[in-house]
Amino acid sequence: MRVLAFDTFGTVADWFTGIRDAMATELPGHDAAALTREWRRRYAPILARVESGELPWRGLDDLQTETLRGVLAESGVAADDATVARLVHAWRTIPGWPDSAPGLARLRRRFTVCALSNGSVALLSEMAKHNDFGWDVIGASNLWHHYKPAPETYLGLARLLEVEPAQVMMVATHQSDLDAARSHGLHTAFIERPAEWGGDPKDDSGSPHNDFHARDIEDLATQLDV
Amino acid sequence: MRVLAFDTFGTVADWFTGIRDAMATELPGHDAAALTREWRRRYAPILARVESGELPWRGLDDLQTETLRGVLAESGVAADDATVARLVHAWRTIPGWPDSAPGLARLRRRFTVCALSNGSVALLSEMAKHNDFGWDVIGASNLWHHYKPAPETYLGLARLLEVEPAQVMMVATHQSDLDAARSHGLHTAFIERPAEWGGDPKDDSGSPHNDFHARDIEDLATQLDV
Repeated sequence: MRVLAFDTFGTVADWFTGIRDAMATELPGHDAAALTREWRRRYAPILARVESGELPWRGLDDLQTETLRGVLAESGVAADDATVARLVHAWRTIPGWPDSAPGLARLRRRFTVCALSNGSVALLSEMAKHNDFGWDVIGASNLWHHYKPAPETYLGLARLLEVEPAQVMMVATHQSDLDAARSHGLHTAFIERPAEWGGDPKDDSGSPHNDFHARDIEDLATQLDV
Repeated sequence: MRVLAFDTFGTVADWFTGIRDAMATELPGHDAAALTREWRRRYAPILARVESGELPWRGLDDLQTETLRGVLAESGVAADDATVARLVHAWRTIPGWPDSAPGLARLRRRFTVCALSNGSVALLSEMAKHNDFGWDVIGASNLWHHYKPAPETYLGLARLLEVEPAQVMMVATHQSDLDAARSHGLHTAFIERPAEWGGDPKDDSGSPHNDFHARDIEDLATQLDV
């Protein structure tokens, strides 16, 4: 194994806290936690509509703008374009989990450590600067114009790095991401993130098919003897 | 200015020393320095043939293999395929100039610091691991299937990072690279590398059109108050 490919939203960064705080600032007097969860629930479905061909390729910020407008309209929350833009932009500066930056730094000593995310290169590089995530390479949806779990993402990263899929391990807190990666020949590691949904239930059971199951990224580094 | 885009071969890494040493190891008894310089002289011309449309898109390793075979054949040097492959691979582990890693680390505190190179992502990430170059983003020829000085490279990096060309400064020890970048609206900084050709003459005069002229990357960081 030479490459570790990390999901970002939820796995290395805490979208709930970051977005709920931005919601509370931008839209005071509304239920920031509820709006945040509802926005996040609409994320995977709209990406799937792009991958099915129902929608043409569009960047993540654009899709997030559309889903946020839907959430706000259905919740009866008024927000101007600048407010919506700031909330979409807030995904670039969500906080890392406390173990993320130190865990990635340890793993980087022995592996090529990459983001493999549905964010754009610009989004992921801003998130990295904000949190001191030391990515060797940023694998982003706008490099291949596909969203996970499309095969072009997992296989695209392997091809970009000139390695075999079996030399890559996908690391995520979402078993569906790992199942897709595994179906294309990648190894898999599950990271527990019980607080991903801000206290709402989260399935951290993983799967016996994963190569590793870790409490957090520091624990993964320890299990990998780094 | 938000982004610094660095040429790599010559500007941040010392191709002459790295390749000459590899030549001396792989092909003992031949003039390693002369073979190295002749190989490097054939680099820009074959990239230009790809950009002119005379040759279809091909990755840098493939082009370097072709030019190396030409140099060896014309010099009467026999080398098997494995030797040629190791010499092509040696471009991935050429040494950084002594100021490069510390200078990049300083600049990274304030700017998004990128490679903008005719190498591939795989080549540049290996070179970075080998030398501890901390790139925020790797801008590589195989992301856009174009070689500098094609406009798709300079403008492609700005687009990837979602910034205006004027928010990017190209940093290089080759004035032709800077002239091209400037023609597309980027700022420019010249870095002196008098030893680039291993003691053979090198024009480090730069141009009054550059925004900065620095002795090395640490000096550039100082001039940029980082």
